[in-house]
Amino acid sequence: MKNNILDYTFPEDLKEMSLDELDLLSYSIRDFLISKVSATGGHLASNLGVVELTLALHKVFDSPKDKIIWDVGHQAYVHKILTGRAKDFDTLRQLDGLSGFPKSKESVHDIYDTGHSSVSISAAAGLAAARDLKKEKNEIIAVIGDGSLTGGMAFEALNNIGDSKSKVIVILNDNGMSISPNTGSISKYLGNLRTSKGYISAKHFIKEKIGTSSGIGHSIANGLADIKNDIKYSLINQGGLLFESLGFTYFGPVDGHNLADLCYTFNNAKSLDEPVLIHVITKKGKGYKNAENNPSKFHGIGPFDPTTGSVTAKKTDEKSYSSLMGQFIADKAAEDEKIVAITAAMCEATGLGAFKNEFPDRLFDVGIAEEHAVSFAAGLAKGGMKPVVCIYSSFLQRSYDQILHDVCMQNLPVIFAIDRAGCVGADGETHHGMFDISYLSSMPNMTVLTPSDGNQLEEMLQYALSLNAPVAIRYPRGNTIYNKNITSTFEGKNVRLVQQKSIDIWACGKMLSTASTVIEQLADRGIDAGLVDVGIVKPLDLSPLDKDNLPEYIVTLEDGTISGGFGHHLAGYFSSNNIKIISFAWPDEFIPQGTVDELAQRYGLNPEKITERICEEIERKT
Amino acid sequence: MKNNILDYTFPEDLKEMSLDELDLLSYSIRDFLISKVSATGGHLASNLGVVELTLALHKVFDSPKDKIIWDVGHQAYVHKILTGRAKDFDTLRQLDGLSGFPKSKESVHDIYDTGHSSVSISAAAGLAAARDLKKEKNEIIAVIGDGSLTGGMAFEALNNIGDSKSKVIVILNDNGMSISPNTGSISKYLGNLRTSKGYISAKHFIKEKIGTSSGIGHSIANGLADIKNDIKYSLINQGGLLFESLGFTYFGPVDGHNLADLCYTFNNAKSLDEPVLIHVITKKGKGYKNAENNPSKFHGIGPFDPTTGSVTAKKTDEKSYSSLMGQFIADKAAEDEKIVAITAAMCEATGLGAFKNEFPDRLFDVGIAEEHAVSFAAGLAKGGMKPVVCIYSSFLQRSYDQILHDVCMQNLPVIFAIDRAGCVGADGETHHGMFDISYLSSMPNMTVLTPSDGNQLEEMLQYALSLNAPVAIRYPRGNTIYNKNITSTFEGKNVRLVQQKSIDIWACGKMLSTASTVIEQLADRGIDAGLVDVGIVKPLDLSPLDKDNLPEYIVTLEDGTISGGFGHHLAGYFSSNNIKIISFAWPDEFIPQGTVDELAQRYGLNPEKITERICEEIERKT
Repeated sequence: MKNNILDYTFPEDLKEMSLDELDLLSYSIRDFLISKVSATGGHLASNLGVVELTLALHKVFDSPKDKIIWDVGHQAYVHKILTGRAKDFDTLRQLDGLSGFPKSKESVHDIYDTGHSSVSISAAAGLAAARDLKKEKNEIIAVIGDGSLTGGMAFEALNNIGDSKSKVIVILNDNGMSISPNTGSISKYLGNLRTSKGYISAKHFIKEKIGTSSGIGHSIANGLADIKNDIKYSLINQGGLLFESLGFTYFGPVDGHNLADLCYTFNNAKSLDEPVLIHVITKKGKGYKNAENNPSKFHGIGPFDPTTGSVTAKKTDEKSYSSLMGQFIADKAAEDEKIVAITAAMCEATGLGAFKNEFPDRLFDVGIAEEHAVSFAAGLAKGGMKPVVCIYSSFLQRSYDQILHDVCMQNLPVIFAIDRAGCVGADGETHHGMFDISYLSSMPNMTVLTPSDGNQLEEMLQYALSLNAPVAIRYPRGNTIYNKNITSTFEGKNVRLVQQKSIDIWACGKMLSTASTVIEQLADRGIDAGLVDVGIVKPLDLSPLDKDNLPEYIVTLEDGTISGGFGHHLAGYFSSNNIKIISFAWPDEFIPQGTVDELAQRYGLNPEKITERICEEIERKT
Repeated sequence: MKNNILDYTFPEDLKEMSLDELDLLSYSIRDFLISKVSATGGHLASNLGVVELTLALHKVFDSPKDKIIWDVGHQAYVHKILTGRAKDFDTLRQLDGLSGFPKSKESVHDIYDTGHSSVSISAAAGLAAARDLKKEKNEIIAVIGDGSLTGGMAFEALNNIGDSKSKVIVILNDNGMSISPNTGSISKYLGNLRTSKGYISAKHFIKEKIGTSSGIGHSIANGLADIKNDIKYSLINQGGLLFESLGFTYFGPVDGHNLADLCYTFNNAKSLDEPVLIHVITKKGKGYKNAENNPSKFHGIGPFDPTTGSVTAKKTDEKSYSSLMGQFIADKAAEDEKIVAITAAMCEATGLGAFKNEFPDRLFDVGIAEEHAVSFAAGLAKGGMKPVVCIYSSFLQRSYDQILHDVCMQNLPVIFAIDRAGCVGADGETHHGMFDISYLSSMPNMTVLTPSDGNQLEEMLQYALSLNAPVAIRYPRGNTIYNKNITSTFEGKNVRLVQQKSIDIWACGKMLSTASTVIEQLADRGIDAGLVDVGIVKPLDLSPLDKDNLPEYIVTLEDGTISGGFGHHLAGYFSSNNIKIISFAWPDEFIPQGTVDELAQRYGLNPEKITERICEEIERKT
């Protein structure tokens, strides 16, 4: 054993270690995780829960020849440590630093980049089909949480693999939670499996072999090969019939914190030539009392004091957009019993905690199932309700077709409260909400609103409740901005704030704050500009324009992709006029992790760079 | 009994009819369907399969108070006949005529508009939740095919309902097919249920009561109420454990062509207060030998001779885009063993028949599971293959997130062969492929190609295979156009066909044919225009432009929505130049059914209207 995680050469060193040594190592890894994540922030509870699981995977399987795919991917920190990246943890989730998710550009051990839920089994199926066609021999392992298993796509993949009989090992990491505690009949079903029988145990087969440095994998492979069929059938829990119905051989449940049992089961799965599902029971936050007691808090967390578990960031008086939204619709729900709220397994994170407490019967947590969430909301609307669907922008991408086909085509009064729209910061490219303006703006019947501050979020929710048609309100991550210099009230129109000049700045949502600084900087350079607060992105509301005396330039600012965004729509509208449109938005590429300010700086979206480019454009053209 | 379907007042008359009378009526309905659909074209086989099922539904349940939701919806013709719309069948699928899908604007009995697969259970869950909150009493029935059940969203909905315990009746219409025969482990599982035990039979309970005009519903409700729990448990097939695991009470299998058994089971389901799944076995094409023998051909068919079953449209020498695509990639697959093809339950319809025959191991039919199809393809690409994903444009909307998150973000060489892009005609608003240019163009790393004829489709497939990055090729429904006057060869660039003038027409894909007529019509009016064949919609390829001498007008033509389309992107690019962009595309609304020519005429996209508007714009501006 070495003194420091950084002294190991992983994954090679792992292969030589005994189970007892691995057990000791699990303590070092937990210490390391707590120490690093408490400094940088990040996903903690899920990673503490998979320490033994990840050790056993890298012990038994031979990565990267054997391919491990992490569903969602925020639980891959231990995997990163065990594949040579412990040294990079000081840069976790920072600009140009270590990602909080698997990234193939970081390591050959990161087979498939994830971030969204429920894709791992599909990806594994594809990799397995490729392997089979090439007649190669290696294992493909998908590690998926019980929460992610409620995503329909995971079921589509199980249905496909179970039929193809292609060898894939699905490891169901069952901690009874996604981010919130799980809902759904599958969750109950798994709960029954957990309690209905004892764990699979390797004790009577291998107790005497534990602790030898030759490793458990070797001894099992030799000692048990001849009785593998007996083992297979003794391991199958008859309660696993759901998975057996889908064509999988089910092993479980396995204690996910018992290295011997994990290695034993993984080796058995390895010896079979058919789809296998291993049901592993883990505890989110395992080994760190603060996280065990409050796994939701420690799911994704900012820097904290490792002893007390208290978050170290200063408390502010400001409220997050999420909690403001949640409280507002809870207040409205008290007045209007038609208002209902829908979440896809993120009740607290989307701010619906208050609503749930006050109106538990009108809060629907459908699990990680964004497609169903939206058509379910459409059904509620058809039934006379006023549903508010609360989903993060990048996860709502899953519901594209349901928003278009179910909600917009039937012109139903469903409100989409789209949290984490625009640049989200440290979660990076899979989590930025860059595309919503673009894809929602091309949907007929849809209204797209962007509040510039917390007051406007409330005004827009009120407006949306009155509209009797599909409405999307997209707001950024974090605390509400109350613009210091500018107050803007939304009353169903875009708002002119500064008188129209030959340069007119149109700022969508949170970019109003940037625009107000740009106006000042332009003024310092002797350039006067007008200002419009664009609350309505779609349909185009041009009422603040003096139509008899159009400006020479309209400058658009938006927190989303340039491609198909507000600027493009405005340019399309004015395409046969002489108005020049200068659009500021995120470029047509995937934006990496970093703080929102760092990224704005890098991509030319901070006030200084915007001012500079406006001046250049004007100079070039005049 | 009346002589003619049109003489009835449905659904009222139905309530008074005996089972024997309903049985006779089923013959009239089949005759009516065959007679009408052979004249107009439409979906036939699926409707012939649900005649008794629909009769029993309207017999036992009280629509519209009880709400019947038809998954996909092309099997709702009998429902339309039984709800007062038989008289409209001569206008089926025609401009301003009867829709081939449920439309709430047509009838109060059409509860929820469908068109895409697997949404019915979600919609039913929403309606049921609304009913429960309002403390109303009525039944919510989702009728879903076994094919649609493979869509993950259906599973998400089952998982949600099974947990909520809200009363929903799911009728699984199992004919062993979606459009092609089904694949997947669920399909096998259902097959086992079909063969492992006899059907549920009402015989020993109600034989003596059949034929009385008081109706079966009444007698069962009175006679059997006290033994309903006995019935419930005797009806549950132990093989239905998959659905029982999901929290549903399973009844089945039921012979879907036996009215007595259907009514008996529906009445029993009605008497319970919990989620019920009724497994009904039907035969696609039932009662019409031509369709029974070839249900795929009679799934969706043009006008045909009812006696022989032969399609009456003249055979042409032209090939469909679908078959051309399928044959081309089959030919390429013979040279390159990395090429694999993926379909979501539409092997023949997407033209993959030849590929399947030649390379059965490299053709993956994943079932109706577009989300999985794309991430599965991403996995194949990660494994070194060159996957071609063949999905209709409007169904590919289901994969929005997977295309973005799995394929584009990892920049994987997945080719999307997007059939039925643009206006598709008679299937109407749910099936037009209007949005693909818009949503694919905002995805980083994506290349979007639009072939102007069959030759170009092949050239573009070849180009895509060489690109090692995500590529989408979108082509229209129907036969390939070989432009009479214009030949354009695609070599990875947009092609200038007529020398640049002050008006320059940029035509995407099939619109080149329209553009060539517009050019002639403009010439007749003394206006010269240049012409560019836009094969590459994204990234913008402006190489055909003379940059030192830009045109005054660029006219864009595309077969997709205006909103976020090629015209908007071009306008965005030129937003600070003096070029004027005049864009022709479908407006920002849902486009109804009609022939492609009728719709182009109505929406200003035929050559005459385009020419006219160009002249107006030029006049207005100069």
